[in-house]
Amino acid sequence: MAMSPAVKQRQSDRRVDILEAAQRCFARHGFHSTSMQQICAEAGMSAGNLYRYFPSKEAIIAGIAERDRAEVVAEFEAADLSRGLLATLEGLARHHFAERSDEQIALCIEITSESHRSPEVARIYQAFDAEVRARISGMLRFAAGRGEIPSDLDFDAITEMLLIMADGVWMRRAIEPGFDAGAMIPMFMGITRHLLRIPPDGVKESNE
Amino acid sequence: MAMSPAVKQRQSDRRVDILEAAQRCFARHGFHSTSMQQICAEAGMSAGNLYRYFPSKEAIIAGIAERDRAEVVAEFEAADLSRGLLATLEGLARHHFAERSDEQIALCIEITSESHRSPEVARIYQAFDAEVRARISGMLRFAAGRGEIPSDLDFDAITEMLLIMADGVWMRRAIEPGFDAGAMIPMFMGITRHLLRIPPDGVKESNE
Repeated sequence: MAMSPAVKQRQSDRRVDILEAAQRCFARHGFHSTSMQQICAEAGMSAGNLYRYFPSKEAIIAGIAERDRAEVVAEFEAADLSRGLLATLEGLARHHFAERSDEQIALCIEITSESHRSPEVARIYQAFDAEVRARISGMLRFAAGRGEIPSDLDFDAITEMLLIMADGVWMRRAIEPGFDAGAMIPMFMGITRHLLRIPPDGVKESNE
Repeated sequence: MAMSPAVKQRQSDRRVDILEAAQRCFARHGFHSTSMQQICAEAGMSAGNLYRYFPSKEAIIAGIAERDRAEVVAEFEAADLSRGLLATLEGLARHHFAERSDEQIALCIEITSESHRSPEVARIYQAFDAEVRARISGMLRFAAGRGEIPSDLDFDAITEMLLIMADGVWMRRAIEPGFDAGAMIPMFMGITRHLLRIPPDGVKESNE
């Protein structure tokens, strides 16, 4: 059945609304304890209508993961590598460490928890994570290719360490009252320089 | 009412059994979805008996946190600082990164998630975390006091970064199939040296 562009747009907006309603419910009650009924109530729609968009909670998690994946891909694609690798990584870190909402972090930890119990959630989440890893290590290899960093670095291990720090900052934000993620960025960048063997006063961003 | 030592020991053993049963249930079903009935069944005891030891799930979480706190305190106290700060930190990292069970990690992430919803769980968990922070920064200050590392380091910020990496390694273990936490230890120690301004070939452990 052909749909008009206006109908398509309305359906897409409705999906976005449902994902946001579900995200609030998951953060509040936990993924496991949230019912489809609660999501209907939060989204202000009937169960019959909700099921037309998403047949299960797993389908909703898949929808959230796909939305976040698209957002992360867009971030990486918008990253202006001509500014240099360090400036690019600093921009991504600033966005990821300090600009994400507490609700997004709570949801991420909730999904990590749930992926321990649900193979379907685990599969969705791991595919997303693998894509982020590939993007970061690709960025490092690209920078090495144009001589910005040494080419004999262990790109995969450095990528792991960058992700360890990114995940750890989110855990700190979730655990520690008053933790200031933004204040950790200079130390994070110092470690990044160390890992990439860029001398402390070596490569500088031109706009600093 | 005075208790004989044998009765006290039996009660203490029973508490340990209950905490372990509860931990298995929380990892399997999530903290929020686990009922006191499920914990009774897993521990093989009646509800009346369980409630004598722990009146609520929050009391059980408090019991788990207290058990883990005591274990971490014992680890820090057993740490032999005469071997040098780096060897001590490497020993703690090896234990924390690679020797913890997947179940312990799942439980920790579960509690982080739950502390977002339950102020009581948050309070217990944050007190535990603050103690770990104080122990680590105390260890750094002690090492500075005896001239092993510079005394003008930002001990609190370095402690945060060590915890960020420790938390992040657990998140990686929870998210990424086949992630090898032990393999990250040399890079973690390189970063630790960088943060403590110890030259790469500077201080060496005598038993290396």
